[in-house]
Amino acid sequence: MDSNGWIDELHEGVRYGLTGRVLHQEQSSFQQVTIIESKRYGKGLLLDGCWMTAEGQERCYHESLVHPALCGAERIERVLIIGGGDGGTARECLRHGEVQHLDMVEIDGRVVELSQQYLPSLGGGAWSDRRMHLSVGDGIAWAAAAADASYDIVLVDGSDPAGPAEGLFNRSFFEHCRRILRPGGVFGTQSESPEAFRCVHLEMVKLLREVFGHADPLYGWVPMYPSGWWSWTFAATDGARYRQPKPERAAAVAASCEIWSPRWQRGAFEAVPAAIERELEG
Amino acid sequence: MDSNGWIDELHEGVRYGLTGRVLHQEQSSFQQVTIIESKRYGKGLLLDGCWMTAEGQERCYHESLVHPALCGAERIERVLIIGGGDGGTARECLRHGEVQHLDMVEIDGRVVELSQQYLPSLGGGAWSDRRMHLSVGDGIAWAAAAADASYDIVLVDGSDPAGPAEGLFNRSFFEHCRRILRPGGVFGTQSESPEAFRCVHLEMVKLLREVFGHADPLYGWVPMYPSGWWSWTFAATDGARYRQPKPERAAAVAASCEIWSPRWQRGAFEAVPAAIERELEG
Repeated sequence: MDSNGWIDELHEGVRYGLTGRVLHQEQSSFQQVTIIESKRYGKGLLLDGCWMTAEGQERCYHESLVHPALCGAERIERVLIIGGGDGGTARECLRHGEVQHLDMVEIDGRVVELSQQYLPSLGGGAWSDRRMHLSVGDGIAWAAAAADASYDIVLVDGSDPAGPAEGLFNRSFFEHCRRILRPGGVFGTQSESPEAFRCVHLEMVKLLREVFGHADPLYGWVPMYPSGWWSWTFAATDGARYRQPKPERAAAVAASCEIWSPRWQRGAFEAVPAAIERELEG
Repeated sequence: MDSNGWIDELHEGVRYGLTGRVLHQEQSSFQQVTIIESKRYGKGLLLDGCWMTAEGQERCYHESLVHPALCGAERIERVLIIGGGDGGTARECLRHGEVQHLDMVEIDGRVVELSQQYLPSLGGGAWSDRRMHLSVGDGIAWAAAAADASYDIVLVDGSDPAGPAEGLFNRSFFEHCRRILRPGGVFGTQSESPEAFRCVHLEMVKLLREVFGHADPLYGWVPMYPSGWWSWTFAATDGARYRQPKPERAAAVAASCEIWSPRWQRGAFEAVPAAIERELEG
């Protein structure tokens, strides 16, 4: 935080800052965790100086990751979230009444505790939902140890590929994610910015296409992330079923979404920037 | 510019900054004009402290404004650009070989001169193209004085609705834009951010729908603009013809576009955020 009350994330000669004040800052076992109160977006979370979320713009991220997967899978009884310590991804998943069991595996228990304390609207009712099973631990090991075909949905809600999240971007991890999906299941992950993290984004999509045989990036917005332009990538055991939201499930959540709708999703899967599309096809 | 070499735009408790240095700054008759050299995006332009463009990200804006209109109109012989002093919009228009005459009416001649001097890649060959007719003057008065049905394309490439650009956001101006279009012609304008300028964005789309009987916002990205999430809105004299790019014209420009393609455009017209769609339909 600078002397004029700005809290910034710096990324390659660019900064995005909010005016506000730091409510809490500590070094957990894994990373620096900062909770702020901003004028524009309410309370927010940074990890190692990078914006993760804020009350006033979290839905751009969480709706984009969750509903394409949960509206498209054949069944959604058993859900695994790797990361997602702020609780927003779990909250959106649990809006779907067909979800019976949700395992959330977050490596940093302090992120969960501080989110529960300072950002309770992120998790909402998820923290006390009887379907929610929170484990503090290594999501990569969890996926490696999980039984074949044991989840309908696997969502990866991690930070950038440095520090504790680095292992969420490699072939072995993605192969386990595929292995533990039931037939008709859907995998989804945040997949970085096609602008600010262009190479990582391209590599992730290509690697997922190798592992699953196909994968589709969806392009949206998270204003506080580098460039504001963000992506999530989906794959499934049996083709691109995430592109066809089941109408009943979609209708049950769409009316209270800020961003997501079947129409928005259709557009977001098509809005592949021309140069990215050429690189992915080439 | 602060003492650490950051050049920022501030907007409602948020800032977006680039590291670099100021190459030139002056008060023109209309606004403060600043030219910078940034580490990340090369040279850039600010007007009254707001980011307008930079060499390394200008195509996000210019391709999104130009090609939906120029690929969709029945004919594109006569084009009018209001604003667009950096030259990027004219450059993209003149890539279409069917354009025979382009009138560009920019109120601030200093923006043109400084762009020609510091940002020559923005205008590229447009400044010396025999089809280009630059007038320094009031684009609102130009539109009011133009003959009925005298243009195939009218593009508005102005800044935010304050200062010299304020009159580019009202009914009388839009009615003249409609009046001066030939049958089969297309109108396009930047229409602000659905996030950072939500009310202005909604009002523009609604007003254009009243004036033209229909209008469609397209959602894309300009990382340096507030929230990074931006829109352009299109209308036509005879329905939404801008949604169907003519294949020959599209093929002539798509291969060298960074962002725009017929597929990207199809997505960008569909990616209406759910809450914006509800407000527009309501």
